[in-house]
Amino acid sequence: MATGSETDIRAGEECLDFDPAEEAEAGLAFIGVIHSPWTDRASCPRNIGRARETGQGAEILIRPAYRRGLAGLAVGRHLMVLAWMHHARRDLIMQAPRHVDGPRGTFALRSPNRPNPITLSCVTITGLDPEAGRIEVDAIDFLDGTPVLDLKPWLPTIDMPAGVGPGVT
Amino acid sequence: MATGSETDIRAGEECLDFDPAEEAEAGLAFIGVIHSPWTDRASCPRNIGRARETGQGAEILIRPAYRRGLAGLAVGRHLMVLAWMHHARRDLIMQAPRHVDGPRGTFALRSPNRPNPITLSCVTITGLDPEAGRIEVDAIDFLDGTPVLDLKPWLPTIDMPAGVGPGVT
Repeated sequence: MATGSETDIRAGEECLDFDPAEEAEAGLAFIGVIHSPWTDRASCPRNIGRARETGQGAEILIRPAYRRGLAGLAVGRHLMVLAWMHHARRDLIMQAPRHVDGPRGTFALRSPNRPNPITLSCVTITGLDPEAGRIEVDAIDFLDGTPVLDLKPWLPTIDMPAGVGPGVT
Repeated sequence: MATGSETDIRAGEECLDFDPAEEAEAGLAFIGVIHSPWTDRASCPRNIGRARETGQGAEILIRPAYRRGLAGLAVGRHLMVLAWMHHARRDLIMQAPRHVDGPRGTFALRSPNRPNPITLSCVTITGLDPEAGRIEVDAIDFLDGTPVLDLKPWLPTIDMPAGVGPGVT
């Protein structure tokens, strides 16, 4: 895991004076891994919208102990995939991404760098083999090899803020 | 943390033969805490929709070290709140909730009981005092005292599956 170094931050960026990894109060078990076409950060789409535009799918491989938990999923269903951005740095609290005008707090950004680098992506199941722990999805914006933390059905009734309802694009 | 006991599961439910908490491969730092009206499970709304219906708001209190990360948030913005369901059990892999017809895999359910009991809720910011680490939100379906893991801006362009676009309800 990358830890803080004042030497490689941009103007306006600020670091915590500790590494959140060393303040851990709960532990995460990896339930599987992402197999995606994105083997380095330069090629990895910046968000799921851009990942979909590439037309390339991805695969989630669930570890044997957890495969029973896939019962009830089906092709065509929407899924939230929660994953652990193991390459992220956890000490950046103000950040100045190139596409944003000026530095902003980490919690106002979707940057992978955050105290708990959990990411999530809304995908559609395109193929499924529960016994093999294999889930094919329409797209993913995670690097190949990213550890998976959780899968949840995406539900339009609860996964949008008040006042935003489902439409069809 | 609750661990598995075969004595308090329902018909059709299945447990892992290990506790995922003991297989931890990454650590979570708690960045703050939820202050909600829901002090026990019986009163806690089952999802954010039901929480909104109560008309009661909630408060997120961010720890001092992380408050700088709130810069750039604003009243009216939509936020995803990620939290740690510290009362959940982590070993239930097949579950039979009362409102579902028959047992289902944990990853096909939104139950709090899961290998990594991370929950998330889409809320709207109704009040904000970044220096005090205080964020008021329209509603929350988390128990009072739930540890907070992350805050992310909710973005309609990336936080819905393909084919589902923003509408207005």
